[in-house]
Amino acid sequence: MAELLHVLDLVGVVVFAVSGGLEAARKELDPVGFLFLAAVTGIGGGTLRDLLLDRGPVFWVTQPQYLWLTSAAGLAVFFAASYVERRRAVLLWADAVGLAVFSVLGARTALDAGAGAGVAILMGTMTATFGGLIRDVVCGETPLILKKEIYATAAAAGAAVLVLLQAIGLPGPVAAGTGLAVAFAIRGTALVFGLSLPSYRLRREG
Amino acid sequence: MAELLHVLDLVGVVVFAVSGGLEAARKELDPVGFLFLAAVTGIGGGTLRDLLLDRGPVFWVTQPQYLWLTSAAGLAVFFAASYVERRRAVLLWADAVGLAVFSVLGARTALDAGAGAGVAILMGTMTATFGGLIRDVVCGETPLILKKEIYATAAAAGAAVLVLLQAIGLPGPVAAGTGLAVAFAIRGTALVFGLSLPSYRLRREG
Amino acid sequence: MAELLHVLDLVGVVVFAVSGGLEAARKELDPVGFLFLAAVTGIGGGTLRDLLLDRGPVFWVTQPQYLWLTSAAGLAVFFAASYVERRRAVLLWADAVGLAVFSVLGARTALDAGAGAGVAILMGTMTATFGGLIRDVVCGETPLILKKEIYATAAAAGAAVLVLLQAIGLPGPVAAGTGLAVAFAIRGTALVFGLSLPSYRLRREG
Repeated sequence: MAELLHVLDLVGVVVFAVSGGLEAARKELDPVGFLFLAAVTGIGGGTLRDLLLDRGPVFWVTQPQYLWLTSAAGLAVFFAASYVERRRAVLLWADAVGLAVFSVLGARTALDAGAGAGVAILMGTMTATFGGLIRDVVCGETPLILKKEIYATAAAAGAAVLVLLQAIGLPGPVAAGTGLAVAFAIRGTALVFGLSLPSYRLRREG
Repeated sequence: MAELLHVLDLVGVVVFAVSGGLEAARKELDPVGFLFLAAVTGIGGGTLRDLLLDRGPVFWVTQPQYLWLTSAAGLAVFFAASYVERRRAVLLWADAVGLAVFSVLGARTALDAGAGAGVAILMGTMTATFGGLIRDVVCGETPLILKKEIYATAAAAGAAVLVLLQAIGLPGPVAAGTGLAVAFAIRGTALVFGLSLPSYRLRREG
Repeated sequence: MAELLHVLDLVGVVVFAVSGGLEAARKELDPVGFLFLAAVTGIGGGTLRDLLLDRGPVFWVTQPQYLWLTSAAGLAVFFAASYVERRRAVLLWADAVGLAVFSVLGARTALDAGAGAGVAILMGTMTATFGGLIRDVVCGETPLILKKEIYATAAAAGAAVLVLLQAIGLPGPVAAGTGLAVAFAIRGTALVFGLSLPSYRLRREG
């Protein structure tokens, strides 16, 4: 299970890095821009999590393979963006996998660092969504979390399931697997049916 | 006094969280957006302060009640935004209280962590203004600190008074109370009279 | 050499702070806005580097002279912006010096903290470019790193040269000096000839 989670973690980083690279393609940037947005999107969420939990140097300082991974993904998109872009549907689903994995791993990292339930859920949500948030803010786009899509909600649900199942004593792999499945199912359902949460409407004066 | 400061701190967090929720209402977001902007605005400044001072995990990791508070505030605004919006004048004044409290508390936290006078004043100013700054940047709005309002100035003045009075040996509660009063007075005066600092004018060629 | 690097470091901070002040002038801000943008631009890159490496309180908490320096630079620009603005060419070259110094110093700080080669190169690049990035994001401008200029590339090259030369055993001052020269030469060449890297082109459907 730990093995599988680690592999899924790497998959998540690559998928998010690719989405950063695609944003660079949309902005018609040079290779440095691709490397930058791939790294920011792929490892931004985990970086913020490590900073907030004060876990020493952030994870990619001691595990630089993450940087090589985002760099490879960024450059690959630079040379093959039109090919990747045409497979956008695949990417949306791969992104859903990344979202699910990061929410569960982020929550677990927080629990391991001694955080309480609420904090762990928030950390899971942030790990899953913050890389994309930074990418959008830097690029001057409206962040996904400010749009009417069920995205952060799916991450929060997955993290909450993990925290709950661990609290009632289920073994770690079961808790992680169930949380992952819940997050992926919610995001997937939203993708298939184009669902969104009810949002606030400004009352406009007649 | 410490009791009172703690209560005021909670008031400040709630008021800033409400202002984040109101921004979410203006953007017509879903509940997750309200929770997100309420949290970012309510605890963003203190989070940055803790990161920069390297005080271990940021304050809300060990005191998750702050998260519950911003979440409650965010959801309350979601369900009652039109009601809150109509009381905008009250909010401006409550925000002035938050600004004053955060500037004084931020400066004191920095002094307690061994920082010098200049750093403490900056930390007070940042604690008071950074949550709103992140909210505005994420939302694509012009940050208040880049507008011609006396806002950060009031926070800096309050922090400076606290630092000065503690340096000349006055007891903590007196220093904090005076700093708080000064910050609130300056911000309040600016609100009442619509004051601003003289700003730089680009020379335009004839 | 260490002496010279320290002096160049201060020069870099001042130059970047001035560029922050000039942005404040373009936005017609008040003095607080000048102080803010000067500080963010001058010390933002080093601040992020220290946070990511978890080096304790960030450098300007224990060395507040950096804050005084950016504040002095910011206020100087407030009172003399039209004069500074006319010397824009000088500033571009001074900025190239800052870029070169920060890339080398940032990489060295990372190596000293035990980071590997890839991380050190990234830290050098980030130290050199992140202050300006934050400045642009806060001001709602397109960050330089997202434009087609050879800027981050020059910083990365300088950091890479330093890391490489230290790895093959050359003495620190030689490695630093060569890295600095390479970064400055690349940035300078790009400035003189208006060079840019080839960038990705969206294929537009006929």
